[in-house]
Amino acid sequence: KNLLDEATSVAKMSYGERAGMADSNMAKELLTLMESKQTNLSVAADVNTCAEVLQLAEAVGPHICLFKTHVDVLADFSLAFTLELQKIADKHRFLIFEDRKFADIGNTVAMQYGGGVYRIADWSHITNAHTVPGPGIIDGLAQVGKPKGRGLLLLGQMSSSGTLADGEYTKKTVEMAVARRDFCIGFICTSRLSEDPSMIHMTPGVQLEEGTDSLGQRYLTPEVVIGERTSDVIIVGRGIYKASDPAAAALQYKQRGWAGRDEAKKG
Amino acid sequence: KNLLDEATSVAKMSYGERAGMADSNMAKELLTLMESKQTNLSVAADVNTCAEVLQLAEAVGPHICLFKTHVDVLADFSLAFTLELQKIADKHRFLIFEDRKFADIGNTVAMQYGGGVYRIADWSHITNAHTVPGPGIIDGLAQVGKPKGRGLLLLGQMSSSGTLADGEYTKKTVEMAVARRDFCIGFICTSRLSEDPSMIHMTPGVQLEEGTDSLGQRYLTPEVVIGERTSDVIIVGRGIYKASDPAAAALQYKQRGWAGRDEAKKG
Repeated sequence: KNLLDEATSVAKMSYGERAGMADSNMAKELLTLMESKQTNLSVAADVNTCAEVLQLAEAVGPHICLFKTHVDVLADFSLAFTLELQKIADKHRFLIFEDRKFADIGNTVAMQYGGGVYRIADWSHITNAHTVPGPGIIDGLAQVGKPKGRGLLLLGQMSSSGTLADGEYTKKTVEMAVARRDFCIGFICTSRLSEDPSMIHMTPGVQLEEGTDSLGQRYLTPEVVIGERTSDVIIVGRGIYKASDPAAAALQYKQRGWAGRDEAKKG
Repeated sequence: KNLLDEATSVAKMSYGERAGMADSNMAKELLTLMESKQTNLSVAADVNTCAEVLQLAEAVGPHICLFKTHVDVLADFSLAFTLELQKIADKHRFLIFEDRKFADIGNTVAMQYGGGVYRIADWSHITNAHTVPGPGIIDGLAQVGKPKGRGLLLLGQMSSSGTLADGEYTKKTVEMAVARRDFCIGFICTSRLSEDPSMIHMTPGVQLEEGTDSLGQRYLTPEVVIGERTSDVIIVGRGIYKASDPAAAALQYKQRGWAGRDEAKKG
């Protein structure tokens, strides 16, 4: 609750104002895009084939700032698919965020990020990492991602029940991000954690109604996430990709997420 | 230090005695294999091509209980490679451990473990997970891995500097493992964490001399890890795969790891 109160002033700034204050070019680019496209919606493409991912990206592209992938659930993944996805991203003007949740020591994550079958650093503007290995994980990823102009989100909090990302863990994560604000562009979190205007806060587990799934995921509404908890971006998965009309659902979430800004600005 | 003192009695038991006390068949199988093959050595295959992994497995196979992979750094990964690796594992009698460090919510890790390009659950006897998302991650992985007879290690501690896996985090991780001892077979850790004889403790960052790398990884010797800290398995990477003769290096680590048991038994 303290963190929330302190954060009121940043929450009152526009994304565009904050773009001018960011260290990392990737943070600048995302904040600028959010302002011009008037959207703080990210869609999580938790579907199982490349065709479904591309179809979803095409449908929701006009309404989102960021498209979140889990390429390691795609049985038919190929680098050709990543080229197609980049074309759709350019056309509809959104960024790509591979939700890899890197979680190893620096030497290993550098190889996982730049290499392997997925070559994540080659096509994903943004990826994320857990801080449990310590700050070496950020240095390892930065060695690969910074020369390519990429950005990193740190997992400061999680939306799943019984998560150990809280208290001191969260506090230390914020310190690690701010110490590397040349590469760290923000957090995955359930509420605003930092007053630094360059730190972009993204919150998963968003649906139109609150609730819980059978494996411990807890859901919040766009109004709570943006308006009350003053996060910056809502990440919506099942509420959009399982909708009968994902484009219409995305538009609805976009409107509710953006309207949440008015509440946040009231403080 | 407390955890270490309490653990003395389990450390005095043979791996074979403990096999009879394990809940999970995978824990039984690994402990039995360690006893009969007289090895507590795991080799980490942090090399970049499938051919190098297979060559390393063939060379060190006779000396190890467990072969640790990072398939997501292999640019030429294929399911045919996993079949070759399984043949070598059968021939030399060792188990395969894909060091994936799963770290997402239950719904997502279930898809990542069973699906995608890698189909980890189809060929890896053992994998591992961070507990930062809470116990739902174990349930998600168990849905996929338990029907296949697989086992899971939890990351209780890490060897990298500034790690957040300590204190309460470690304690809660041990609780989560014991609560799911039907599927959790132990820990990645830097010293023994649990008195439960079915929990197999594995320690990475082992070299013949102590030291640190440029990205924060800290090294301990086999004698310290097995003899003083009473862990069960040493995981050796660069000390073996970068050696001019990996088989000879593996034999040396095997002997030193096994000799460490004598110190551990003295208590």
